[in-house]
This record gives sequence, C-alpha cells and structure tokens, in this order.
Amino acid sequence: MHSFPDHLLKGHANFMAGRYAREKDRIRDLAEEGQTPTTMIIACCDSRAAPEMIFDAGPGELFVLRNVANLVPTYQPDGGQHGTSAGIEFAVKALGIANIVIMGHGRCGGIKAALNPGLKPLDAGDFIGKWMNMLGELPDQLVQNDLMTAGERQTALERISIRNSIRNLRTFPYVAALEAEGKLAVHGAWFDISTGELWVMDSSGDFIRPDF
Amino acid sequence: MHSFPDHLLKGHANFMAGRYAREKDRIRDLAEEGQTPTTMIIACCDSRAAPEMIFDAGPGELFVLRNVANLVPTYQPDGGQHGTSAGIEFAVKALGIANIVIMGHGRCGGIKAALNPGLKPLDAGDFIGKWMNMLGELPDQLVQNDLMTAGERQTALERISIRNSIRNLRTFPYVAALEAEGKLAVHGAWFDISTGELWVMDSSGDFIRPDF
Amino acid sequence: MHSFPDHLLKGHANFMAGRYAREKDRIRDLAEEGQTPTTMIIACCDSRAAPEMIFDAGPGELFVLRNVANLVPTYQPDGGQHGTSAGIEFAVKALGIANIVIMGHGRCGGIKAALNPGLKPLDAGDFIGKWMNMLGELPDQLVQNDLMTAGERQTALERISIRNSIRNLRTFPYVAALEAEGKLAVHGAWFDISTGELWVMDSSGDFIRPDF
Amino acid sequence: MHSFPDHLLKGHANFMAGRYAREKDRIRDLAEEGQTPTTMIIACCDSRAAPEMIFDAGPGELFVLRNVANLVPTYQPDGGQHGTSAGIEFAVKALGIANIVIMGHGRCGGIKAALNPGLKPLDAGDFIGKWMNMLGELPDQLVQNDLMTAGERQTALERISIRNSIRNLRTFPYVAALEAEGKLAVHGAWFDISTGELWVMDSSGDFIRPDF
Repeated sequence: MHSFPDHLLKGHANFMAGRYAREKDRIRDLAEEGQTPTTMIIACCDSRAAPEMIFDAGPGELFVLRNVANLVPTYQPDGGQHGTSAGIEFAVKALGIANIVIMGHGRCGGIKAALNPGLKPLDAGDFIGKWMNMLGELPDQLVQNDLMTAGERQTALERISIRNSIRNLRTFPYVAALEAEGKLAVHGAWFDISTGELWVMDSSGDFIRPDF
Repeated sequence: MHSFPDHLLKGHANFMAGRYAREKDRIRDLAEEGQTPTTMIIACCDSRAAPEMIFDAGPGELFVLRNVANLVPTYQPDGGQHGTSAGIEFAVKALGIANIVIMGHGRCGGIKAALNPGLKPLDAGDFIGKWMNMLGELPDQLVQNDLMTAGERQTALERISIRNSIRNLRTFPYVAALEAEGKLAVHGAWFDISTGELWVMDSSGDFIRPDF
Repeated sequence: MHSFPDHLLKGHANFMAGRYAREKDRIRDLAEEGQTPTTMIIACCDSRAAPEMIFDAGPGELFVLRNVANLVPTYQPDGGQHGTSAGIEFAVKALGIANIVIMGHGRCGGIKAALNPGLKPLDAGDFIGKWMNMLGELPDQLVQNDLMTAGERQTALERISIRNSIRNLRTFPYVAALEAEGKLAVHGAWFDISTGELWVMDSSGDFIRPDF
Repeated sequence: MHSFPDHLLKGHANFMAGRYAREKDRIRDLAEEGQTPTTMIIACCDSRAAPEMIFDAGPGELFVLRNVANLVPTYQPDGGQHGTSAGIEFAVKALGIANIVIMGHGRCGGIKAALNPGLKPLDAGDFIGKWMNMLGELPDQLVQNDLMTAGERQTALERISIRNSIRNLRTFPYVAALEAEGKLAVHGAWFDISTGELWVMDSSGDFIRPDF
C-alpha cells in the first residue's frame, strides 16, 4: 500500500500515455547518453512560474535550480552547504553549460516577504527571513520610497534582485572567467505570471520585451 | 538590444501560442488570486526530471524546489541562509501545502558525485562535495559494499538518500506536528528517467510501482 | 506672400481632401452647435504622444491641454496666470466634462529633465527647471535610489508624477465636489511610445494594461 | 479593475490595429532615437482644432502645446511656474525647433470669455478670467467698438490675440536671437473650424488663405 497523491499518479499516467509515448526514443537516449543541456535556469519555486512551461522545454533541455525568489548568493567557499552554489558549480563544471538565466517573476511571495518582514504567517526570524536577507539592505531602501505603490515596489525589487543575483553570480571565479572568454553568458529575465510575457534584461540592466 | 538565447525565445513564443492561449483565463485568475498548490515537490535540477513533465502538471499545481540531488537538510535554525529550508517553510507556513514529495531519479549526477568523491571535473573540496556531505557516511558505507555493481550502488543511494531526506524533513517541528495531526503527508518517489516509470515509497520505505 | 511651412500646407491639403471631405457635415455641425466633448485629456507636448492619435479621436471628441510633462498644479487662486488651471476650469465649468485623464508617456523629456537638473542644453534655472519644480522633492527622492536603472527611475517618475497630478487636480474644489457626486471621474494613463500600449491607473494607483 | 472610459479604450484599440500596425517600425524608431520635430504648434484646447488633424500629421512631426486660446505670455524669468514658457524653452533649446506656429481658431471659447467677462458659468475672478487677462486691454478696446457685430469682434480678437502672442514670443531672448539669425521662424495661423480652411498670417499681420 501507498498513500501517494492520486492527482500525481493520474498526472504521471498522462505523461506516460502522452509525451513519453511520443518521445520514448529520445527520452531513452537521454538516459543512456547523459544530459547535455546548454542552459541553466535559476528560477523560483512558485507553482505559476515553471521554466519548462514558460520555455515550452522538453526533457534534456534545461538544467533547472529552483529556490525561493530565485536568489544567487555570492561565492562563499567556507565549507558550508550551499545548495544554489552547488547547482551552479555542477552546471558550469560538470555540464559545461553555455547560458545561465536568472529568472524572476511577478507577484513573487519571497520578494513580498522581503518587503514585509514578519508578515504573517511568516516570521522574519524564520528561514524565509534569513534567506531573503541575501538581498541585504535593498528591500529597506525600497520600502522607504513611499512614492511608489506596493505593486511598483514589488516589481522593482523583483528586478533589482535579479540584477543583484547576476552580480553575485559573477563572484564565482569560474563564471567570471568563462564569461570573459565568451564561453558562458549570464542573462536576466522576468516572467509576468498574468500576461505570460517574458521581459529580458538588456545590457543596461533594463527589462524589455523582446517579442514586442 | 539583448542577447537572450534564441531557443528560449522560440520556446516562449510556443508557450504563448499554445498553453497560454488555451488557458489564459485560468492563468490570469491564478495571478490575480494567488497560488494555492496543495503539493510541494523537492526534486533534482536534472534536465530529464522536471516534475511538471513527470506529473503532467499545469500552472498553479506544484510548488517545486529543485536542488542538486533533491536533498533536504535537517532543521538548523542557526541563522544561516538555508534555501531548501526556506522553501519548505514557505510551502508549509505560507501556502499550507498538504503533501511534500521528495522525488529522486535514476542516473543522478549528484548521487554519482557522492559515490565518487573528487571525480573530475568536480572536486570534493568544492560546493558539490560539501553539498553531498549532507548524506554523511551513507555513501562511504555503500562504496565499501563491493557486492553490488556500480549501477546498483547508484540506485541504492538514490533511494537511501530519499529516505534520509524524509527523516531530515521530519526534524522540522511544524512538519512533524502537522503530519501528526494528519494535515500534512510526506512522500518519497523515484523517477526512472529511461522507462518513465514512477516508483513511490511505501510505508516500509520500499519503492514500488503503483501502476503495476 | 507668406512663408508658412510647406509641410504644414501640404498636410492641411491632405486634411481637406481626406477627413474634411468625408466628415464635412459633422464638422460643420460641431462649429455651429459648439463643442460638447465629454473627456478632457491633459497630455505632454511630445510629438510622439498626441492624444488624438492614441485614442483615434475625431473632431469634437477630446478637449486637450498639453504642457511639458502633463503636469497639473495644485489649486492656487492667487491671481496669477495659471494656464493649466484655466484649462481645467474651462473643461469642468464651461463644458461640463465627465472625465479628466492625466496621460503621461514613456521617455518623457520633461521628466528626464527633472531627474537630471541642469542637463545641457537645458538649465535648471530656466523655465523647464522651474516648471518641473512642481514635482517638489519627488525626483530627488528617486534619484537617490541607485538600485534602479536610469530607465526604471524614468518610468517610475513618469507614473509617480501622474499620481501627483491627480492629487493636485483633486485640490480644485469643483473637481473634488463633482467627483464626490459621481459626476466627474479622474483617470491616470501612461502611453508607451514604443509599443503603443496604453497602461491605465487602477484604484490602487498601479498602472495596468486593460487590453491584456 | 479600472474604470477607464470605454470610448478611449476602443479608440486605442483602433489606433493599435490601424496606424500603429501600419507604422510600427517608424514609431519604434522614434521611441528609440528620440523625437526630432522641426515645428512647434501652440494651439487651443478646443476639441475641434487638434493640430494633428488640421495638418494631417503623424507621430514625431509636431511638438504641440495647447492651452486655452493659444496664448503666449511675455518672457518673465521671475521664478514662477510658466508652463507655456517652459514648452517654448524646451522646443527651442532642447529640440532646436525651426518653426513656431501660433494657431488660433474660430469660435474660440476663451476669446469669447475675454469679450464677455463674467459670462456664466464662468467667472471673471476665476482662472479663465485671469488667464485671458494676458490680452490686457485688447478685449476692452474691441468691445467698445459697437460698429462690429459680435461675430466680427470675436474673429477680430482671435487674430489680434495671435499677433499679440507673436509679439510676446519675440520677448524671449533666444527666440529673438535665433529669428534674427534666420534659424527660427515664427508664424501665425487661424483655423476655421467650420469650413476647414487655414488662414495664415503674412508679413503685414494680415490673415490670408494660401490655397486661394
């Protein structure tokens, strides 16, 4: 006996009858030969922002790390257990990935928590609070700006945070080195969970819609 | 100008013309009303094991954390920045999730690294090595078992690791409390990236195929 | 003899042969019976943001005041010559307008000047500088926020300024009174001169795209 | 939610499907590269006298300031907030405009108010009254002339006012200097909102129809 959720079993049966049946050969080859994705996506856990959905990506295409609010810490080789750093290291060193995309999204609960520390049911003293501390004083500076609406501050911090993560990502020596050699590109993106639009970061740090 | 990868832009255009066009109303409602997923999946970054693919899940259904080898640490309220713990806390406290699934998979690169410390191009002294240390002496004990093939040891550790993560997950006080109250269920699953099969953990810790 | 610019004469000939010829009766009636527009637009002088173009509006439809950066001052019955206030008064009192729209736009030169006082060839001591002083310390507060890109600060101030103008508009006693009676509605809008999109202000002050 | 007027949303949809769709490339270039209009029009807010309609002008062609009765004050560098002067300054200094056109029109409500101070629902003590005071004693002198009909006095003042605004415009030192150098031309025009005709001012100050 098992108590595995029914909706997951049904979903898996759909997968077997659908994509797996259609792409069986490719999926088996991928298993046999190993994955060779060219792109890593660092995304949020949010159920509305799955990279595979947003980029209509199939098996083998995207190496995906997802944490709360898609944050990247600075390079801290201190012996601690850094999950995000381990993912980046694996992608760059073991998989030789060519692109890393930090992908934020609208109405992000983690960013909201950072702008509203201690907002119930969360508690600033908990893991979320400490995790979002990775943004340092960025949220505080923004909260002081009462000229912007709550929604504008949220979008602003979502984008500021992506730029911050990109800066942090470049503190990894191998990321910086490969980027300098033109072998690795670092990108920012922001997904609008309502309109479905993808805004990508240009060289000035601004987010634009490339499909417009 | 931007240099965003073309394959991602094309994929996004497919998403807009496909799923977004078909499910626009539901996606907009999800943005407006907020996400209410009932299930959290803790999965691996592997490009062949996306939870949304495996469970044929649409927007809003799964809250997904992905790290290397789908590991969960023990509860360590030490002030450090624990990304996986932050994700669990957010899922349980902010979203009131009913199910947490630790989902491992076959041919996992992180597990392989744990069984082969220092295997190039990775380095045991790097983030991956330290991250996989979360498994403690489990890999060593297995490596000493030369009765099993390398493939068997790999599958074994993939499953041992899932059981270990479930034990760690239960060290979170609110997880244990809610599970005791019957309000939260913790599950294990192992995905065969070659056959597409899903093996779920039963009450004894064994992995079985529910569809057989 | 006259030296009137040729491109204007040619444009006028096009108007006569085109719209005037087609809508002659309506245009003559409008002249005879007087204008009865229901909407006033307060817009910028920018050549890329003509309200009649944006709203595809014909003769008689929009009462349009245009100044640099579409600013509205507070109600100052001090005997001075307040052009924008005179326009508002005429629209509300003489025409009985039902809607006033403050319409800003992207890449606004006036807003840019406010964020970069003294930027050549303008001079903070000149009329533009004094005119943009209507925003008070809003630009300064934003300039201190170096977390946002120059482009983001510009868009932010364009929208902050619209909200500020709406607040100022409500200091006109008759505007406030008619709005309270439900006889006059005040709106904010922001036009994207690149994508052509119209973002309208919702009740929280946020700008959204109603056509999405 | 928003309550933005439906007729404006429909008009904007027409714009997007019409002109924007046809001229997208040009409009985008204008956004990207900045506006470079060669002509500034100072016109009235009247809904029947939009410069873009009269001159059949597209995006980027005309820098347009619109106030009640298209008045230009004298140069008053007194630290006050002079909206019209700010617009002129921006056009001349920042955009390097080559032509400024003061465009009046028939049946102008502001001119009518100047000829009938205190005419209900307006009040001479209000903003309109003070704004029209820019004409000084010109209306009074005309009112005393009972040889002309009310309609003749109205047309006369509309034209007198244009000549007055041109005189005032020339009190701006940079306008006078550039005009003397032949780099800036100042024009007067009067639009007949009934017949659609454009009357332009010749060197004697008379208004003639160039197309006759």
